Amino acid sequence: MIVDSALYRNGERVDLASHPHEYHVMREGVRNPGDFVWLGLYRPSERELAEVAEAFGLHPLAVEDALKAHQRPKLERYGEMMFLVLKTLWYVDADDAVETGEINVFMGSDFVITVRHGRGSQLAPARHLLESDERRLLTQGPSSAIYAVADYVVDGYLSVISELVKDVDEVETSVFSPARTSDSERIYALKRELVEVRRAVLPLRDPIRRFATAEYGERDIDDDIRPFFRDVLDHLNQGAEAVDSLELLLSSAFDAHLARIQVQQNDDMRKISAGAAIIVVPTLVAGVYGMNFDHMPELHWRFGYAYALIVMASSVTALWWWFRRSGWL
Amino acid sequence: MIVDSALYRNGERVDLASHPHEYHVMREGVRNPGDFVWLGLYRPSERELAEVAEAFGLHPLAVEDALKAHQRPKLERYGEMMFLVLKTLWYVDADDAVETGEINVFMGSDFVITVRHGRGSQLAPARHLLESDERRLLTQGPSSAIYAVADYVVDGYLSVISELVKDVDEVETSVFSPARTSDSERIYALKRELVEVRRAVLPLRDPIRRFATAEYGERDIDDDIRPFFRDVLDHLNQGAEAVDSLELLLSSAFDAHLARIQVQQNDDMRKISAGAAIIVVPTLVAGVYGMNFDHMPELHWRFGYAYALIVMASSVTALWWWFRRSGWL
Amino acid sequence: MIVDSALYRNGERVDLASHPHEYHVMREGVRNPGDFVWLGLYRPSERELAEVAEAFGLHPLAVEDALKAHQRPKLERYGEMMFLVLKTLWYVDADDAVETGEINVFMGSDFVITVRHGRGSQLAPARHLLESDERRLLTQGPSSAIYAVADYVVDGYLSVISELVKDVDEVETSVFSPARTSDSERIYALKRELVEVRRAVLPLRDPIRRFATAEYGERDIDDDIRPFFRDVLDHLNQGAEAVDSLELLLSSAFDAHLARIQVQQNDDMRKISAGAAIIVVPTLVAGVYGMNFDHMPELHWRFGYAYALIVMASSVTALWWWFRRSGWL
Amino acid sequence: MIVDSALYRNGERVDLASHPHEYHVMREGVRNPGDFVWLGLYRPSERELAEVAEAFGLHPLAVEDALKAHQRPKLERYGEMMFLVLKTLWYVDADDAVETGEINVFMGSDFVITVRHGRGSQLAPARHLLESDERRLLTQGPSSAIYAVADYVVDGYLSVISELVKDVDEVETSVFSPARTSDSERIYALKRELVEVRRAVLPLRDPIRRFATAEYGERDIDDDIRPFFRDVLDHLNQGAEAVDSLELLLSSAFDAHLARIQVQQNDDMRKISAGAAIIVVPTLVAGVYGMNFDHMPELHWRFGYAYALIVMASSVTALWWWFRRSGWL
Amino acid sequence: MIVDSALYRNGERVDLASHPHEYHVMREGVRNPGDFVWLGLYRPSERELAEVAEAFGLHPLAVEDALKAHQRPKLERYGEMMFLVLKTLWYVDADDAVETGEINVFMGSDFVITVRHGRGSQLAPARHLLESDERRLLTQGPSSAIYAVADYVVDGYLSVISELVKDVDEVETSVFSPARTSDSERIYALKRELVEVRRAVLPLRDPIRRFATAEYGERDIDDDIRPFFRDVLDHLNQGAEAVDSLELLLSSAFDAHLARIQVQQNDDMRKISAGAAIIVVPTLVAGVYGMNFDHMPELHWRFGYAYALIVMASSVTALWWWFRRSGWL
Repeated sequence: MIVDSALYRNGERVDLASHPHEYHVMREGVRNPGDFVWLGLYRPSERELAEVAEAFGLHPLAVEDALKAHQRPKLERYGEMMFLVLKTLWYVDADDAVETGEINVFMGSDFVITVRHGRGSQLAPARHLLESDERRLLTQGPSSAIYAVADYVVDGYLSVISELVKDVDEVETSVFSPARTSDSERIYALKRELVEVRRAVLPLRDPIRRFATAEYGERDIDDDIRPFFRDVLDHLNQGAEAVDSLELLLSSAFDAHLARIQVQQNDDMRKISAGAAIIVVPTLVAGVYGMNFDHMPELHWRFGYAYALIVMASSVTALWWWFRRSGWL
Repeated sequence: MIVDSALYRNGERVDLASHPHEYHVMREGVRNPGDFVWLGLYRPSERELAEVAEAFGLHPLAVEDALKAHQRPKLERYGEMMFLVLKTLWYVDADDAVETGEINVFMGSDFVITVRHGRGSQLAPARHLLESDERRLLTQGPSSAIYAVADYVVDGYLSVISELVKDVDEVETSVFSPARTSDSERIYALKRELVEVRRAVLPLRDPIRRFATAEYGERDIDDDIRPFFRDVLDHLNQGAEAVDSLELLLSSAFDAHLARIQVQQNDDMRKISAGAAIIVVPTLVAGVYGMNFDHMPELHWRFGYAYALIVMASSVTALWWWFRRSGWL
Repeated sequence: MIVDSALYRNGERVDLASHPHEYHVMREGVRNPGDFVWLGLYRPSERELAEVAEAFGLHPLAVEDALKAHQRPKLERYGEMMFLVLKTLWYVDADDAVETGEINVFMGSDFVITVRHGRGSQLAPARHLLESDERRLLTQGPSSAIYAVADYVVDGYLSVISELVKDVDEVETSVFSPARTSDSERIYALKRELVEVRRAVLPLRDPIRRFATAEYGERDIDDDIRPFFRDVLDHLNQGAEAVDSLELLLSSAFDAHLARIQVQQNDDMRKISAGAAIIVVPTLVAGVYGMNFDHMPELHWRFGYAYALIVMASSVTALWWWFRRSGWL
Repeated sequence: MIVDSALYRNGERVDLASHPHEYHVMREGVRNPGDFVWLGLYRPSERELAEVAEAFGLHPLAVEDALKAHQRPKLERYGEMMFLVLKTLWYVDADDAVETGEINVFMGSDFVITVRHGRGSQLAPARHLLESDERRLLTQGPSSAIYAVADYVVDGYLSVISELVKDVDEVETSVFSPARTSDSERIYALKRELVEVRRAVLPLRDPIRRFATAEYGERDIDDDIRPFFRDVLDHLNQGAEAVDSLELLLSSAFDAHLARIQVQQNDDMRKISAGAAIIVVPTLVAGVYGMNFDHMPELHWRFGYAYALIVMASSVTALWWWFRRSGWL
Repeated sequence: MIVDSALYRNGERVDLASHPHEYHVMREGVRNPGDFVWLGLYRPSERELAEVAEAFGLHPLAVEDALKAHQRPKLERYGEMMFLVLKTLWYVDADDAVETGEINVFMGSDFVITVRHGRGSQLAPARHLLESDERRLLTQGPSSAIYAVADYVVDGYLSVISELVKDVDEVETSVFSPARTSDSERIYALKRELVEVRRAVLPLRDPIRRFATAEYGERDIDDDIRPFFRDVLDHLNQGAEAVDSLELLLSSAFDAHLARIQVQQNDDMRKISAGAAIIVVPTLVAGVYGMNFDHMPELHWRFGYAYALIVMASSVTALWWWFRRSGWL
């Protein structure tokens, strides 16, 4: 499905009367270097993509990747064309889960084609930001669109990560709360999500670095836009560092949780034992006065029974007090 | 055993009237650059392989490797010839196990010889895919056959890994199920299989990278086929990343399993203690009324016995209710 | 807010009659190479920073970073200008916590602008040290100010780390003290703080290395001042090593803590069991003399009761002594 | 002690009438490039080695190393001479232990001197294999002797590793057997042996890589013999990978062992508790009928006693059955 | 404090009549390249060092470092001068602890100044070894003194490590001894000491590598002395490897210790339970014969009491035997 398609000339969106599928009309609208067509697709059918591929001369391997999705982030160069794969991430509040989508970007000297998979990864905001950008990045040609997409996607990573930071804080509070919590499942789920984030963030660093640094020297990337890619790279590095920290904290939190379980078990055991001791002593007293000796003076006392009950009660009280004091109860 | 042997001329399979063992006849069929012979062997005997080695001028060290199998994936160059070792993996549903085989590939300017060990690693599908490929890769010469084999083998890795992903999901469900499970053996077995997968995937990356990138500049590999090797490399990287993730998840799952065992032990201990307390209290009551004091009014009550039983029963009930409420039972 | 602003000419602070906001007047005061303006800002408003940016020609991306703070340490070059981000750390005694701030430094050939965020990161001492430095570093131009800031910030890291070393020593003492301690929360908090320190220290090493070594060859950095940056780099490396050591020690301390909990649990269990045994034996004795056999000679002894009590008491004593000797009590 | 000494001329062993200690006579027998003397020493005395050093012009630091042994594997170049240190490994079946020895090799343009320490590291087989090699490697000069030694030593590593693989399999079986095993000591011992193997295998990779690859360009190593060193390097890599896998498996096996101990403890605890419950209930019944109430009808029943015993027995049976069913017994 | 100062001319120590503080007199004694002054200081005062710095033209940053000590090992070059920091280690038998000192070395073309901090790091032996060295290293100039110091210090590392190896062996024996040991504190202390050793050994490798290899090409280091630095580097690598192994073994030993605690706890629990069972059964018997049924034939038997006692005793014996057999007692 074609979501949006436009021709950018001299940094301005040009409205063409042509039908969105008349790709050649659009390309013919390109006049100067820096002008380009941006075609936005969402889950295109095989036929749709084949038409686009023919019109823009896309490499079959890249087209296959864009159709299948489930790639890892990468940057490929096929002759004059570049093909970039990005993973998108978004946080679903309902179940504290991270979901993933994918964006494939084809870039030639006069066009950018974005192919999007997965719900939560609309590119419309990125396009609008770029169109209204006062720094007039659009005049830099197709690489400005790549920047807009990458910046938007990486901002998405950072906001997912900041949600995960909150989740880790919650886990931490829960682990060290006096309540009996079963945090290990939560910790596992968060680790699993961090794995997901890591798989989006880490492999993207190499492509962005290639856009950002002069050493790699990707042709087609204008020098003036390089600092912007460095900015994106910086955000990626920040994300990667945050993921490392969160993983370390989760592992430490899990260890602390394990220690806590142990301590609780010990506390319970001592509580139980103290409870048992409190009952066993009066039972012994009862056993003593249940003996059948002929000569047991207490048995014949008038208040012998009361006396025995008092002995029992005071032993219970004494033990209770003693266990309290030593922290067993 | 010769499994299949054919001459490819101008990208087409040519049927020769020659006997499969008349290697020189086949080689003589090569006319143009890009034509080549593809000889497929399965567990060749020493004599069989020696004949082939002589006919194609294979290096003795490579022949020795191909005969013995049990090599690690590698790419060797002996003069004009290249020798590639790949491990094959397949998943045996019956016992959730990963089995391994090995493929050795000799490549010269006008021939490819594949030597296969282990059952589940047929190359026929790879050959057929290549022969019917509409991109006419076969015209690229022997490197197209290497691509076909590598692509096929690496696809095999990915499908094995996707089975392991399912297994890890099962383990995860089992670990966090309320049932008492003994997942540690399963986790261990999966880790063991991941080790196997890792040993196939990781060392293959370097050879494929050498095929894929211009920097390494392996002679004999045509520039047009390099993107296809990059595609294979990408799948390998994807596999390697998945293995890393699975190992991390298994370790976390094991930790969670350990925590769970601890929690269950604690739960059991509390259940046991609660049970003991419930019995010990009426025992104390019985002990009290078993004392032999002369003056124990209750003993002479008409319904003293019933009263005692009621006291016991209510203490049992009260304790039961209390332990229930505090989650010990 | 402008905290301090001065012109340095020939290594001396020059007092200008101009208003601090008349930036152009200050810049015009620059006569010779090595003269420069140092403008110190604290949490500038967007408008304030925009004025400065215009006056000194700062790159919009850098300005955006300096305004938002929450960057990771980095060094960016925009044309002739350099932009350095440093994290500041300080230790709050009240709650043994590490807090973080941020300093952004813009550097051109004739100016340095420091933008500070976060309370505990005043730069006044750094400026005064530099002004009164007898090695007359100020004559080296703006890079001397960068050095002064970096040196000051990194010294701050080392003093935070030395506080953490003390904290780890305390934890260690606590873990191995005979008392029952719950160190896991403390250990977790310290690990968390180490993560914070690590995120300040590690990424700063690359920028400082670029200032320090001739290979990187940052223009604008005078050769004579390089050894001073090497000194700062050395302190950073020392800090990074210390953080590694502390993390390792904390992990080991946690392991030891876990072992200790286990040992304590075992000790408690044995103590409890010994206690139970001491009571259960006399209970058996009482049970025996509570039997109703017709012929039980002891029951008719004159001192049978006393005898039974003595038997009980001596069994208690004997068990007590025995458990003591075997270390169970 | 001189173990074997020979002159190799044109790839053939030449028997010289000279006494083995007349080193100069042997060296004079060298005619063509590729001819060389191979002197094999076993634990030479200081004087013996000094004589050899003088005759062949060995560097004093290398001689010192060869005398002391206990070096790590390395390759040193002193002027025209090369000095190689290898660790030898062998598996002692009697106590499942790995023992280590050391071989020092001096190599000049016309001689090879091997100095051996430790029992199980005879080089005679390596020499014989080389002398009878049909590929006539000996014509390649001294580097063929180095190859023969390195190949022999590395084959030794692989066979030690395959023994360790068997040991790890045994440990694995033991860990997951239903029997109560104390595998932690065995696992520790195996880890210790893997450390030993690792210290032999890993540092040798660099020297062999230098022999194997043209990039390093060790003079004296003939191009024709390089593929043979690559073969050795490949075996070393295989060994290193196997050691990694075994360490990972041992760690996982240990974890599983720990989980198993926990589970067994829990099982025991439940068994014990069930046993206690089975006895405590009839004790309560006995307590009840030991009460002294005036009106307890059961006491006067004719078969009251039998009834009580039946109640006890059936409670025991019922509890037994119930605990069995719930898996506690 | 000046510990020793001498002029070395043509590889021989020259006794000068001058007062040790007349530095210029000593320097004037230098005649040929390779002659140099070696000044040995121990904890110099600020004034002392300032005089030396002036006489030899030392860089202020290096002087500051040498005064403060507590640097990490490093090699700095200030113009023509080199500044090397080494950590010294020694083992204090009394408390099995590793202590650290520091040596700072200034080196110019005609002088070496060693500044020592910490008790156990005398350099006199290093100087004497060098003076009496028959290889006449002293003729190589100041770098021979650096070699002498580095060799001496690194030998110190190796002897500390060999003490730690013994300690780890002891811990190992203790962990696997049948006795109840509390090894976790010992293991922690050893890990802590390994951290100390690691901080001395690892950062020194880079400076020594720079002295040892031609690639780095430190001026002032004569080619003939490079192999000696390679020897030192080799010892450093050996030390680093040993530290790695020891850390791994300690971690494994700790794990085994933890497993052992668990097993002991389980053993204790079973012992306790068996003990309890042995007492609880006769208690039940006593309870039975304490019941008040009218018709209990045993009560009226002549030897009923004896019979009951025998039943109790035999139940105790039977249980004892049974628990023994099943390994619970």
